[in-house]
Amino acid sequence: MKEACTIDMIRDAAERLSGHARRTPLLSSPFLDEIAGRRVFVKPECLQHTGSFKFRGAFNALAALDSDTRTRGVIAFSSGNHAQGVALAAKMHGADAVIIMPADAPQLKIDNTRALGAEVILYDRASEDRDAIGAKLSNERGLTLIKPFDEPLVIAGQGTTGLEIAEDAAALGVKDADVLVCCGGGGLTSGIALACEADAPTLRVRPVEPEGFDDVARSLRSGGIERNTATSGNICDAIITPQPGDLTFPILHRLCGPGLAICEDEALQAMAHAFLRLKLVAEPGGAAALAAALFRKDDIQGDAVIVTISGGNVDPTMFGRALASLT
Amino acid sequence: MKEACTIDMIRDAAERLSGHARRTPLLSSPFLDEIAGRRVFVKPECLQHTGSFKFRGAFNALAALDSDTRTRGVIAFSSGNHAQGVALAAKMHGADAVIIMPADAPQLKIDNTRALGAEVILYDRASEDRDAIGAKLSNERGLTLIKPFDEPLVIAGQGTTGLEIAEDAAALGVKDADVLVCCGGGGLTSGIALACEADAPTLRVRPVEPEGFDDVARSLRSGGIERNTATSGNICDAIITPQPGDLTFPILHRLCGPGLAICEDEALQAMAHAFLRLKLVAEPGGAAALAAALFRKDDIQGDAVIVTISGGNVDPTMFGRALASLT
Repeated sequence: MKEACTIDMIRDAAERLSGHARRTPLLSSPFLDEIAGRRVFVKPECLQHTGSFKFRGAFNALAALDSDTRTRGVIAFSSGNHAQGVALAAKMHGADAVIIMPADAPQLKIDNTRALGAEVILYDRASEDRDAIGAKLSNERGLTLIKPFDEPLVIAGQGTTGLEIAEDAAALGVKDADVLVCCGGGGLTSGIALACEADAPTLRVRPVEPEGFDDVARSLRSGGIERNTATSGNICDAIITPQPGDLTFPILHRLCGPGLAICEDEALQAMAHAFLRLKLVAEPGGAAALAAALFRKDDIQGDAVIVTISGGNVDPTMFGRALASLT
Repeated sequence: MKEACTIDMIRDAAERLSGHARRTPLLSSPFLDEIAGRRVFVKPECLQHTGSFKFRGAFNALAALDSDTRTRGVIAFSSGNHAQGVALAAKMHGADAVIIMPADAPQLKIDNTRALGAEVILYDRASEDRDAIGAKLSNERGLTLIKPFDEPLVIAGQGTTGLEIAEDAAALGVKDADVLVCCGGGGLTSGIALACEADAPTLRVRPVEPEGFDDVARSLRSGGIERNTATSGNICDAIITPQPGDLTFPILHRLCGPGLAICEDEALQAMAHAFLRLKLVAEPGGAAALAAALFRKDDIQGDAVIVTISGGNVDPTMFGRALASLT
């Protein structure tokens, strides 16, 4: 079966993003190497516009729309990083963005999304159907839905992260390494896997999830899409998606090594190490891959490990919890 | 009078540092632009190896030594960022480093300096003379002293930051801007000023210091070297040097615009904004220039402002104080 996203789509995305997305580096610290027992290279997508890789996919999806469609505007459902990515990408294209957010989303994220120029529509999780609200608005205004991961153009945009990893790993002489990716619905992981298949075929891409929310790891083992039983209740909020996507899973299944899972405490400790050794702010879900590199080293292969820090949108209270793990 | 450091020395330093120091980007956030009332571009030297720009000057000084001299080793006096920069630069050159640190320096900085391979010698500030200890060791072992700022090769190394700022500002079309630099002894500020004189002559380089420790600003006003009365008692510990250097001051005097001063609370708030909007960890002294850009905007000229975040070596408790300023 033909997969939804191809390496050519990722290379097209890289051209669209050039000069608009940040080209993030690969960072390292001898202190992290020491803990991990191998060289650790960190891809800090927390430094991407809006503080997460989500900007890449959103910008690519917006850029690929024909101008009439784009002029009518876009819509997205998100309480988090995708919301901000779509809002800024739309603003940069001069397009209207409507973001449907739950009324109980963190006020800071609502404020940020509005400040980035989006129209935010709040709904009550208990009494209202967000899909119905979205469908009505889309019909009335002719808005185009930008999905968070199960969309070929979004996967392609996230995949540009993988092109950069492949290029920088080659320059550093890194060949025998796992590439650990913080994984929710699998958009970033599948995009990086496709990019590495083409440009760095000796690297092994592997998803990292929170324990208890390891739907992707279980799906990779069983060969079919598995769901999580819980849908909330973990600090790694950015990556507790209920199941892999219909478009992302076939790519993950064909290309990825076994999934890893980390606990909340390991995510907090990884945030603390990113603070101390890299001077980076990671959110809990964004620190999952680093946590696996540091604390699950027996489950990893190779003389080096490459990890994504996928986002840094964390509130001060949660960051304080991470810092407390240092003492 | 001929100045101690030239643009040619800075270009030589850039060649020596190529592939060894990190080429840091210029970051931005629409939220910071909003507060500052103009575009804000941030040069994040907290992402440099060892968490501060100090690595650049230390590496350049080490690289320029003849190999016999380097083999005998180097020595530095520092309780902070210079210690770590010299330690790593020496390690990368396979040279021994002796760092003389006060016994009451933060344990983390002592541990880090040791972990980077340096021999750390502690002295008691009250009862021992660190210069005597250093001179004895240097004589016995033939060690070369690497000064923290008043040394042409160190100024040249720090000046590579300015070459990068000039290149990136040109690419962004930024011409009418103050370049605000966190300033202690003036090594970074004078180096950036020399680089901008050559490569970005429309940019105005200006030092930023803590209130009460504004020796450079006062020296620029009076035309002669002025001292601070206090030598401690400010959270911006990285930049409370008693006076500008004999080599740095003539450069600062010829090239810099008026100095700015910020208070401790503004430094903490700037750290919080770097956390929230850039996902960067800044130390108090490293956030001084950003604080001036955000909170002293009436004292700044131009449609854009470029600021250095000169370092990110801050302990969790101090960082917690900065985060508390957000609530």
